[in-house]
Amino acid sequence: MSLSSSRSSQHIDADQINYVALSLAPFSWRRRMAERLHAGDSPARILDDLSAQQPAGREIDRETLASRAKAALARAKHADIALITWGDPIYPAALSAIVDPPPALWVRGTAAALSGPAVAIVGSRAGSPYGLTVAERLAADLAARGIVVVSGLARGVDSAAHRGALAAPGATIGVLGSGADIVYPAEHRSLARDIEAQGGAIVSELVPGTPPQPQFFPLRNRIISGLSRAVLVVEAGEKSGSLITARCALDQGRDVLAVPGNVLSGRNRGGHALMRDGAKIVESADDILEELGMPAPARTGATAPDDPVLAGLPAGESCDLEAISERTGLTPTRLLPKLFDLEMRGLVKRVGGGRFARV
Amino acid sequence: MSLSSSRSSQHIDADQINYVALSLAPFSWRRRMAERLHAGDSPARILDDLSAQQPAGREIDRETLASRAKAALARAKHADIALITWGDPIYPAALSAIVDPPPALWVRGTAAALSGPAVAIVGSRAGSPYGLTVAERLAADLAARGIVVVSGLARGVDSAAHRGALAAPGATIGVLGSGADIVYPAEHRSLARDIEAQGGAIVSELVPGTPPQPQFFPLRNRIISGLSRAVLVVEAGEKSGSLITARCALDQGRDVLAVPGNVLSGRNRGGHALMRDGAKIVESADDILEELGMPAPARTGATAPDDPVLAGLPAGESCDLEAISERTGLTPTRLLPKLFDLEMRGLVKRVGGGRFARV
Repeated sequence: MSLSSSRSSQHIDADQINYVALSLAPFSWRRRMAERLHAGDSPARILDDLSAQQPAGREIDRETLASRAKAALARAKHADIALITWGDPIYPAALSAIVDPPPALWVRGTAAALSGPAVAIVGSRAGSPYGLTVAERLAADLAARGIVVVSGLARGVDSAAHRGALAAPGATIGVLGSGADIVYPAEHRSLARDIEAQGGAIVSELVPGTPPQPQFFPLRNRIISGLSRAVLVVEAGEKSGSLITARCALDQGRDVLAVPGNVLSGRNRGGHALMRDGAKIVESADDILEELGMPAPARTGATAPDDPVLAGLPAGESCDLEAISERTGLTPTRLLPKLFDLEMRGLVKRVGGGRFARV
Repeated sequence: MSLSSSRSSQHIDADQINYVALSLAPFSWRRRMAERLHAGDSPARILDDLSAQQPAGREIDRETLASRAKAALARAKHADIALITWGDPIYPAALSAIVDPPPALWVRGTAAALSGPAVAIVGSRAGSPYGLTVAERLAADLAARGIVVVSGLARGVDSAAHRGALAAPGATIGVLGSGADIVYPAEHRSLARDIEAQGGAIVSELVPGTPPQPQFFPLRNRIISGLSRAVLVVEAGEKSGSLITARCALDQGRDVLAVPGNVLSGRNRGGHALMRDGAKIVESADDILEELGMPAPARTGATAPDDPVLAGLPAGESCDLEAISERTGLTPTRLLPKLFDLEMRGLVKRVGGGRFARV
């Protein structure tokens, strides 16, 4: 069976409509829809089968879904928003690996940014000066190393992260809990434009024109983590939405990282709880890159081969204080602080029974 | 063989002199001395045997050691400093368990405080306002629960911890790197007096009159941790002496705890490194008591048995969104944020495949 190129192109359009229709389908479909998407079924077939399974009295009007999808595509074209569907080769690989991938993504800006190595930075909407400074600095340092910074374009830590990445200068992605053409909060419209202008993207799984609603934000969070190799939490209280993003990251097998902070303000209770549960402690961008297995610049000056105490410790042999004292000519009382210092620098270890060895 | 009580009392005096003489013996004896102390040998026998093992040219003058010990005892009597030796029943049990216990302890104040349940709080001598506030507050909260707070009477975090414990009001112990009658820094003399006056103690293994010297402080640190069930580090830079205390605690099988803080100042790099290595993260005194297995007041209001969503989740059974939706009458979009909230509160967990269960 040979297909003409025009027929093929028509097929792609029909697929697009069907993927968008799927994204408009009842929420209760999501799990079964995801299974079918992962299984490679066509969107038309998934729509057919799941429609047929709807219980009596809750029938789905396929025509209405299709016309809403067409209207969304028209609105997107008008607003210069690109559509990436599950079937597209440029659908981001990291996001395709999650259990419940969006069938359709609406993108303003550079779609290729969605496939860069990415780290999410999320945190309190009411970030302290400390939290905002840390988010901005870490985002800038990551972006300077070519990491795409993903966040939620919210007030506080999110926007500080976006701004830090832009300052690097680097690419950053804002994932919305509304249509890609509805920037919320409105004061971040110019930030969104800067993100678009600088090789980044504004992304949503919701059709253009969708207003922000509370229930969209937890779902949006799974996309923030789904696009990223790791999620870094900067200032999250006990009930912060950032903890949902962290939970999503864990469910998705992504690393969860957290920045420690003040214990008196309560602003870091969520982040510290994550650390207790095993989140990596981040003080610098190097810590993040190391966690991702990306090379950080080598540190120099860590070894001191001509240190007289080290020289008095033969490699692969442990010595007691008296022996080291004899080799170095230093009295044990002078030696001990030096050994402690070498121990703290990781060059010497105590091997029990008062003996020391080179590391 | 019957001993008269006067003879017995003479014996105790001789033992005291011998234990102090041991504490004045060459540092290189320390390991063998500790083994013999743990084995239960008498101090006279240990002195005899270790003296006999000294290499030619490094003979020990037993008479000089004994006369220095007697002088120390006389000075102690004059300065109202009590001597506790390894042989005394009131030698602190926690300290006796370490590998290298001091043969003699000089104590000003209430010796019984050395046997209370104790937690050490140590940190930077140049503590920030944050570090000092945290140390003072945690010390006060621990002391209010009857925990003895141990520290090093140094500037910064140490003295903040002592002051916090005193304010509770509670007992606190200052361990010195000089004789118990030489308070360093001198500006802490009145703090030391307050500690004595309020059921606490000033302690040293060094004979009275010993001036502070750098090599004494790492050794002093093993006593701080040795007297304590746990060591809490509040603000420690990368090369802080507090890290030596933490290392001692690990060697001694004590818990190491750390308070997180600002990552921009560098003041917490040591503490954060400890946390990476497994130190427990402390935000409150309750965290410490929990770590020590001591009961903290029960929290209330954690459960919400009449929450409609929880009620819609039968115990021991997992449900998908549709099922919960049917039971609760809530639409999936309304349900999901509530489930996220319950999940964050630890009352509901996701069990994979989009199913939820009560915890």
